[in-house]
Amino acid sequence: MATLRIPDVVPSPTEDSETLMKSFKVLWLCVGLGTNEKSVISVLGHRNASQRKKIRETYQQLYNKSLIDDINSELSGDFRKAVILWTYEPSERDARLANGALKSRKKTITQLQVIVEIACASSPDHLVAVRQAYCGLFNRSLEEDITANVPMPIQKILIGLVRSYRYDKELVDPSTANEEAAILREAIRTKQLDHDNFLFILSTRNSNQLRATFECYKQNYGLSIDQDIKSCGKGLLESILKVVIWCIDSPEKHFAEVVRASIVGFGTDEDSLTRAIVTRAEVDMMKVRGEYIIANKTSLDNAVIDDTSGDYRKFLMTLLGAKV
Amino acid sequence: MATLRIPDVVPSPTEDSETLMKSFKVLWLCVGLGTNEKSVISVLGHRNASQRKKIRETYQQLYNKSLIDDINSELSGDFRKAVILWTYEPSERDARLANGALKSRKKTITQLQVIVEIACASSPDHLVAVRQAYCGLFNRSLEEDITANVPMPIQKILIGLVRSYRYDKELVDPSTANEEAAILREAIRTKQLDHDNFLFILSTRNSNQLRATFECYKQNYGLSIDQDIKSCGKGLLESILKVVIWCIDSPEKHFAEVVRASIVGFGTDEDSLTRAIVTRAEVDMMKVRGEYIIANKTSLDNAVIDDTSGDYRKFLMTLLGAKV
Repeated sequence: MATLRIPDVVPSPTEDSETLMKSFKVLWLCVGLGTNEKSVISVLGHRNASQRKKIRETYQQLYNKSLIDDINSELSGDFRKAVILWTYEPSERDARLANGALKSRKKTITQLQVIVEIACASSPDHLVAVRQAYCGLFNRSLEEDITANVPMPIQKILIGLVRSYRYDKELVDPSTANEEAAILREAIRTKQLDHDNFLFILSTRNSNQLRATFECYKQNYGLSIDQDIKSCGKGLLESILKVVIWCIDSPEKHFAEVVRASIVGFGTDEDSLTRAIVTRAEVDMMKVRGEYIIANKTSLDNAVIDDTSGDYRKFLMTLLGAKV
Repeated sequence: MATLRIPDVVPSPTEDSETLMKSFKVLWLCVGLGTNEKSVISVLGHRNASQRKKIRETYQQLYNKSLIDDINSELSGDFRKAVILWTYEPSERDARLANGALKSRKKTITQLQVIVEIACASSPDHLVAVRQAYCGLFNRSLEEDITANVPMPIQKILIGLVRSYRYDKELVDPSTANEEAAILREAIRTKQLDHDNFLFILSTRNSNQLRATFECYKQNYGLSIDQDIKSCGKGLLESILKVVIWCIDSPEKHFAEVVRASIVGFGTDEDSLTRAIVTRAEVDMMKVRGEYIIANKTSLDNAVIDDTSGDYRKFLMTLLGAKV
C-alpha cells in the first residue's frame, strides 16, 4: 500500500553514494544544477528506509561526511526540507518533528497533531524508537518536553498517548468493546475528556480493539465518537481528540485530511504537506490517495501538482509513485 | 559492582552446550547426579547475559531442543527455578516475573514490588524490552494485565511507572528538584498519593534528577520522603510508594531489604531470594551486599548459607561470587 517505487535492480549503497557525491560536486562547480537535483531525487526518492540507512552509512564511510549535512548545504527551500526528512532514520525524523512541534511558538492543532500521529498512527516499536531517539537528540525525554510546553489537559492526553505500547494483536474482545464504548460515552456526556478511564482506553488498547470499540459506540449511541466529541466544544482539546480517533481508526483518512488542509485556501502549508507524504509514502499512501478522492472528488496527485512547483514538486510526486 | 565471576578463558558456546548436554545425559542415565548438577552450575553460573544467550542459541542449533526445556525437565525445586530464571533472556525473565506477580492470588507488596523493581530499578531500554517481551509471551500488554488484576489507585501508579522512559542523563536541575520536592510534599501532606502531579514526577523524571529531588525534600522538610509517606498510612499504597522511592534512590538498599525479608522469621521466601540474587548478580550485587551488612550487621552470604541448602545454595553462592 506504499506509493514508493523501488527499481527492480537497486544500485549498491556505494554506487548510490557516489552518484549523490557527484551530484553535489557538480552543484559546487555550478554546472547543470537541474540535472543534479534530478539525480538526488532519482536515487533517494526510490529507496526504502533500510536502503537509505545503508546509503547514509556508506556515504559517511566513503567521504567521512554526513549525507544529511551535505544535503543541507547543497539543496534549499522546501525541497531541501523534504529530502532531509526523507533521509533521516524514521525514528530520528519523528523525534525532530515532535521537537519542532513542541518548540513552535504557536501550539495549534497543526503543530500538536504531529505528536498524536507518532503515538497513534505508528507501530508500538516505532513509537518506542522515537522516544529513545528524542532523548539522545535533545537530552530530555519527550514527556518532559510535552510537560514543559503544553498546558493541561492536553498535556495529560499527549503524555498518556506517547507512553502507550499498543500490542497489535488481531483478536478483539467484543464485550470489552461494548463496556469501553459506554465508558467513553459517559466521559463525553459529562464533558470529562481528560478523565483517567477515558484516557486509559485510548492510550492502552490496541488499534483493532479500539476500532471495535468505536464501531460499538456508533451502533449503541447513533453517532460516531469523533462526531460526538464535537458536542463537548470546538476547542483544541476536542480537535486533538478527533485526530486521536482518526489516527487510530483510519490513519489514511487523517493523512488525506492533513494534505487537504495543507493546500486549501491561499498559500500552502508545505511543512504539513511534506510531513504527510514523507511519513506515509512507504506505509499507506495508496490508501491515503483513495481516501483523498472519496473526500474531495479530486485526486491527491493533482492537488500536489497544482500547489507545488520545481524540484519540490518532483520529489513529492516521486514519493507518490509518479515517473518524473 | 557485579558479583558474577566469569573465567579469564571462557569456553566456546559449543563447548558449553556440549558440557550441559553431557550433564543432562548423565542425569538421564542416573549416574553421578551430584557431579552433573555441579557442571550445570559451573557453566551457567559463570556466564553473563550475552554469553548465556549464545549458549541458548547454540544449544538449540546443536540439539534442536530448548535449553530451558531441558533444564526444566532435568533439574528440580528451587534450584531449577533459579537456574531457569538465570538462563532466560533478562527481558523475558522479567516479563514472566511480572506476569507471575499479576496472576498470583494474593496481591501483597511481596508480589507487586516485582513490577516496581522492573519499572524503577532497571534501565529505560530494559523496561521497554520487558514490555515488548510481555506482549509476545502473553498476547496482552503489561498495562492491560495490570488494569485487569490490580485495583485502583495502585493500578494507576503501576501503569504510570511501567510506561516511563527515564532517560538517564547526568545533569540535574536544582530548581526543578526544589519545585518538585514541594509538589511531592503537598501531595503527601494532603494524602493524595495518586495525584497526577505526584505520579508524573515519579514516573517521568530520571533517577539522578529524582535523587536530587528526594535530597531537597529531606533538607526542606526534615524527613526523608519515604519516612514521610508513612504518615499517610500503612496500607499497600504506602508500601508500594516506599518501594518506588527506594528502587529509584538506592536499588541496592531495596534488594538488600528483599533478601532480609525473604529469610527473616520461620521459613524462607525462596522466590524473592532467588529473584533478588538472579536479577542483581550482574548489576549491583556487590553494593547490595554492602547495604545488607550496614542494615543487618551480618553478611548477606552468611544469611544465604544459613537459609538454603544443596545445589540451590551452591548456585546462589556461585552468583554471589563464591568458589563452591
